[in-house]
Amino acid sequence: MEFVAGEYDIAVVGAGHAGIEAALASSRLGLKTIIFAINLDSVGNMPCNPSIGGTGKGHLVREIDALGGEMGKAADATAIQVRILNRAKGPAVYSLRAQCDRSRYRLYMKRVLENQENLDIRQGEVCEVLVEDGRVKGVKITTGAIFLAKAVVLATGTFLGGKVIIGETVIDSGPDGMHPARYLTENLKKLGIELMRFKTGTPARVHRRSLDFSKMQIQPGDSRPLPFSFENEDSFNIEQVPCYLTYTTEETHKIIRENLHRAPLFTGLISGVGPRYCPSIEDKVVRFADKPRHQVFIEPTGLDTDEMYVQGMSTSLPEDVQVKMYRSVIGLENVKIMRPAYAIEYDCINPLQLEPTLQFKRIKGLFSAGQINGTSGYEEAAAQGLIAGINAAMYVKGKEMLVLDRSQAYIGVLIDDLVTKGTNEPYRIMTSRAEYRLILRQDNADLRLTEIGYKIGLISQQRYEKFLQKKKMIEDEIIRVKNTIIAPSEKVNKLLLEKGSSPISTGVRLSDLLKRPELSYEDLKEIDVARPELPWYVQDEVEIEIKYEGYIKKQLERIEQFKKLENKKIPEWVDYNQILGLSTEAKQKLSQIRPASIGQASRISGVSPADISVLLIWLETAKKEKKD
Amino acid sequence: MEFVAGEYDIAVVGAGHAGIEAALASSRLGLKTIIFAINLDSVGNMPCNPSIGGTGKGHLVREIDALGGEMGKAADATAIQVRILNRAKGPAVYSLRAQCDRSRYRLYMKRVLENQENLDIRQGEVCEVLVEDGRVKGVKITTGAIFLAKAVVLATGTFLGGKVIIGETVIDSGPDGMHPARYLTENLKKLGIELMRFKTGTPARVHRRSLDFSKMQIQPGDSRPLPFSFENEDSFNIEQVPCYLTYTTEETHKIIRENLHRAPLFTGLISGVGPRYCPSIEDKVVRFADKPRHQVFIEPTGLDTDEMYVQGMSTSLPEDVQVKMYRSVIGLENVKIMRPAYAIEYDCINPLQLEPTLQFKRIKGLFSAGQINGTSGYEEAAAQGLIAGINAAMYVKGKEMLVLDRSQAYIGVLIDDLVTKGTNEPYRIMTSRAEYRLILRQDNADLRLTEIGYKIGLISQQRYEKFLQKKKMIEDEIIRVKNTIIAPSEKVNKLLLEKGSSPISTGVRLSDLLKRPELSYEDLKEIDVARPELPWYVQDEVEIEIKYEGYIKKQLERIEQFKKLENKKIPEWVDYNQILGLSTEAKQKLSQIRPASIGQASRISGVSPADISVLLIWLETAKKEKKD
Ligand SMILES: Cc1cc2nc3c(=O)[nH]c(=O)nc-3n(C[C@H](O)[C@H](O)[C@H](O)COP(=O)(O)OP(=O)(O)OC[C@H]3O[C@@H](n4cnc5c(N)ncnc54)[C@H](O)[C@@H]3O)c2cc1C
Ligand SMILES: Cc1cc2nc3c(=O)[nH]c(=O)nc-3n(C[C@H](O)[C@H](O)[C@H](O)COP(=O)(O)OP(=O)(O)OC[C@H]3O[C@@H](n4cnc5c(N)ncnc54)[C@H](O)[C@@H]3O)c2cc1C
Repeated sequence: MEFVAGEYDIAVVGAGHAGIEAALASSRLGLKTIIFAINLDSVGNMPCNPSIGGTGKGHLVREIDALGGEMGKAADATAIQVRILNRAKGPAVYSLRAQCDRSRYRLYMKRVLENQENLDIRQGEVCEVLVEDGRVKGVKITTGAIFLAKAVVLATGTFLGGKVIIGETVIDSGPDGMHPARYLTENLKKLGIELMRFKTGTPARVHRRSLDFSKMQIQPGDSRPLPFSFENEDSFNIEQVPCYLTYTTEETHKIIRENLHRAPLFTGLISGVGPRYCPSIEDKVVRFADKPRHQVFIEPTGLDTDEMYVQGMSTSLPEDVQVKMYRSVIGLENVKIMRPAYAIEYDCINPLQLEPTLQFKRIKGLFSAGQINGTSGYEEAAAQGLIAGINAAMYVKGKEMLVLDRSQAYIGVLIDDLVTKGTNEPYRIMTSRAEYRLILRQDNADLRLTEIGYKIGLISQQRYEKFLQKKKMIEDEIIRVKNTIIAPSEKVNKLLLEKGSSPISTGVRLSDLLKRPELSYEDLKEIDVARPELPWYVQDEVEIEIKYEGYIKKQLERIEQFKKLENKKIPEWVDYNQILGLSTEAKQKLSQIRPASIGQASRISGVSPADISVLLIWLETAKKEKKD
Repeated sequence: MEFVAGEYDIAVVGAGHAGIEAALASSRLGLKTIIFAINLDSVGNMPCNPSIGGTGKGHLVREIDALGGEMGKAADATAIQVRILNRAKGPAVYSLRAQCDRSRYRLYMKRVLENQENLDIRQGEVCEVLVEDGRVKGVKITTGAIFLAKAVVLATGTFLGGKVIIGETVIDSGPDGMHPARYLTENLKKLGIELMRFKTGTPARVHRRSLDFSKMQIQPGDSRPLPFSFENEDSFNIEQVPCYLTYTTEETHKIIRENLHRAPLFTGLISGVGPRYCPSIEDKVVRFADKPRHQVFIEPTGLDTDEMYVQGMSTSLPEDVQVKMYRSVIGLENVKIMRPAYAIEYDCINPLQLEPTLQFKRIKGLFSAGQINGTSGYEEAAAQGLIAGINAAMYVKGKEMLVLDRSQAYIGVLIDDLVTKGTNEPYRIMTSRAEYRLILRQDNADLRLTEIGYKIGLISQQRYEKFLQKKKMIEDEIIRVKNTIIAPSEKVNKLLLEKGSSPISTGVRLSDLLKRPELSYEDLKEIDVARPELPWYVQDEVEIEIKYEGYIKKQLERIEQFKKLENKKIPEWVDYNQILGLSTEAKQKLSQIRPASIGQASRISGVSPADISVLLIWLETAKKEKKD
């Protein structure tokens, strides 16, 4: 029997990485929120590697943190190894990666949700989103309970119509032995929402005792572990647990090739589209046929367990092939599989149906975030969840929603890509997707976004003031370094020579010395007598800002161009079919996607520069006409 | 595709409370063992109250511990509150109860399994038990992987054909949002195994913040917390967390009565048989119609969570009724449900198909333990698991199997009841089921069983020696107390009067004073000048053994009678249909159950004393004939 079980401002469907951030954001903004999960024990579950961050993803986590999200703090609290990846490749693509304790992460997130004011937590399977006159009214769960809500955030991950596939075996299931969501897909279809079928996969978990680490390379954590959260900058330390590196062999590849005909991808058992950038091992062996070996990382999944993750070897090959294949990897000769590798297929929505706010264009108050939007990855999910939660709150409050553009944040890049270009495979973030990546660094995420988080109301006064202090320290130090003249002296030139730099014969600005690639801020300490004591994160920032000043400046100029186009808003009422001179494809795409600005319009595939010119002229005229 | 993934001595299907003990026992006895679970994250899950022990159940846990099982240690390691129940009712029915941290318990058990030598752990759904010529050969999982095994223990709990029921809603599901076991039932049927359909239920979990504890009574833990495990006797302490007591109201009962027509039990949606001794609240309201209120205990489910368990209010009423019903309980006026109450229906086997060893009579090497045998409860499951694991090991080694009789242990009572009388509802242990309960105390479980555990090989040399010391201390002290004569004196009589006991005028044995109900061992300390320093558990034991000596003696005499009948073994080859003079019902029951002894035969319902006489005479003659 249907009955009203509660009235809320916001209902969040799903307590994975997206749902958690959404629910925390909206409840922290003072809105009465309820969050649903099929199983309350697996709130914040990581069904794949319990690792947060990495290239591009690490940037997202720091941006989430700067805006007041939870993921960075959770990762810091449960990290068992942290490392900066790509340190050699320059600060634009540095990124932090933490291996976390999977069960502690879940407990941490559950605890945070439970402690959150304004937030109720419910185990229950949502089977219907209630919509009236194009506006969301709430959700219904399978027991008949209706939860009225002014806004709803969908964050169902890989559960919608979930099917787990191992070789020839297909089972209706969510990840990790949970039951799938069986009813919501049909309901979304009825609401006119277009769905797609994607898939993703995970490698086996194996028992630590069955591995021969003496044949592998140790991958230690960084000697100075860094945190994700800016709140932990002053005090972060963990005991680092090692990971291990090993390799596939010719034998591995032979086994895979000989069994390709049994891979579900080839037999047609999997119809969903998989992520190109997280390929399965069979994909890699096919695509890079001449590579004699692939890297395999063996990573712990927690402190209290011997389950180890076999990174790089996700597969949906049958179990008999899996066993042979894993046993052919160096050091895995006697491996004991605890959980086999599998692929999972699920329903997700076509994100072109969303505004950049993550609201459905055609259903007011309905937002969507995470894997359901066609992405893959915990961080991508959390980033969208945060934005959807904020915007659901803004929607309910009747305030302006938050849209970050491509020059402000990776979050902006991610969402803009989704809603402007759509995706035909599970989308993941990469640094190469960001045009302005020298600006969108992980170290300056707070400088870019804390102000925004504070204005929204997710950054506390205290944290904000501390942030302002940090900002001032950085600015002051940059000025000081720029104004400091180093005079030539024996000591100075000795140091320069030692560091492989050319000596100076006249006074030189300290900032100019710092711009020399071979010299670091730390190197120059000896000859920089007036240098104040500064925290490591201020030093890092000063160094980067000065060292890359030239490039940064250029990128800022390009951003200005970009902003001009972004600021040319396209009114909602435009009827593209009426605009003479637009190509047919442009008319169709523009009508479907309904870009918010000329900038967005120009990024739609199929919309040419010529179309943009036509559009610009038409808008000028239309504006004039409106004025007249 | 089918393939052989491994060869084992023993395969255990299920990593709940039964499966864990079975797998640990067999691997600790040196046999190569593998244990399966549908979801490795929920090893040792407690889907109902995370509480171990209680009346009768506490006895089982101590017996498990004395035999070398794990449950007691796990409960000790994760307890957040412990109490002795029924202290006022005398030592036969005392029992220890611990409220545990649900997620820590799971992590603890997973850790123990992972660390266990000879034991492999596998996530995977077993779909077939392989049998050839009446002998078990192994198991197959859904991926096609075959694990050969000489013996198999079934411990599938509530997963076989699991259906979760909330009011009008029925969903295929295992407990806690896990997917059910979908294939094994059919296979068991094909093997000729008779199945039954049972059900059990659980109340809601509610958010701590939504409760008004000021209206409830605090239920603190004991000031001196006692452990379950005899290994922890010398060093056990925990920080005790409180539970709370409150009551249903007239309003609660009214709501339930008005909605009875919607209870699945009444609408016919539930066909499974529920446990009479863990009734749902609607059962209680119907059965005890004149009771104005029922007790409700509010108990924490862990230290890291705000989920509270509402003991006493399990239900399968629809969610709208649940909400109203819970809100009518004192202190729950604003309660927020986090997980609704539900009933679960599942397939289990008719335990009459089992020998007292828990082996199937008709399939050699196939054992079965836990909820699948028609019981209910973690402790009942663990007890059976331990015995099944030991006996699977003995079977593989070709050694004599372990059968505990009704005078040795509650475990004996439990299994004898199951295999002799069967059950038509989920069976749970109760002290009233034990005829010899003054002997089967929880305090002396080690005295009764450690020797056996040691001989089997599950009790270490070190523990055994410590046990012998303890035993000797007890015996010595009993002798000393019996031989100590207390002479009348002013001091002595003053003490006696103070304690409400009559003064003495001649010398009296200390043991005779101790037999007086009003005097405790502790009370007599002052006048017992030669008393040695003894650990609390030795003191307790001495006190009980002396105080109840008379009753104990009588019960021991009755046990001797009992043993005589138990020792009259009935050979396997007996064909009951050939025995003249047996009633038809007796012939049928005896043929079905095939009791191992006259004792067991006499407990079969439908077998009369007259039948037993016929049987005895027939056996005498048959024996003689065989000799001749
Ligand atoms: C097998 C597997 C392999 C993966 N491999 C990778 C990888 O290699 N790299 C990578 O980056 N990412 C990988 N991922 C993806 C990653 O797990 C997800 O991207 C991430 O967890 C998505 O977060 P989410 O919040 O969108 O959804 P999830 O974390 O999936 O959370 C979904 C939540 O929604 C709830 N829910 C769903 N439907 C309902 C409903 N109807 N009613 C109520 N609650 C509902 C669930 O209970 C759950 O709480 C993998 C995932 C899986 C399952
Ligand atoms: C809703 C609910 C309410 C309950 N209420 C009470 C109560 O009030 N009082 C009480 O005393 N007891 C109660 N119980 C019962 C108690 O939970 C069980 O008695 C106890 O957990 C049984 O232990 P077990 O080891 O037999 O099975 P479980 O603990 O259920 O474990 C079963 C194991 O088998 C695995 N499994 C099942 N099938 C397969 C397969 N085909 N292949 C591989 N693995 C498989 C599962 O993954 C799991 O690991 C309740 C249980 C439930 C679910």
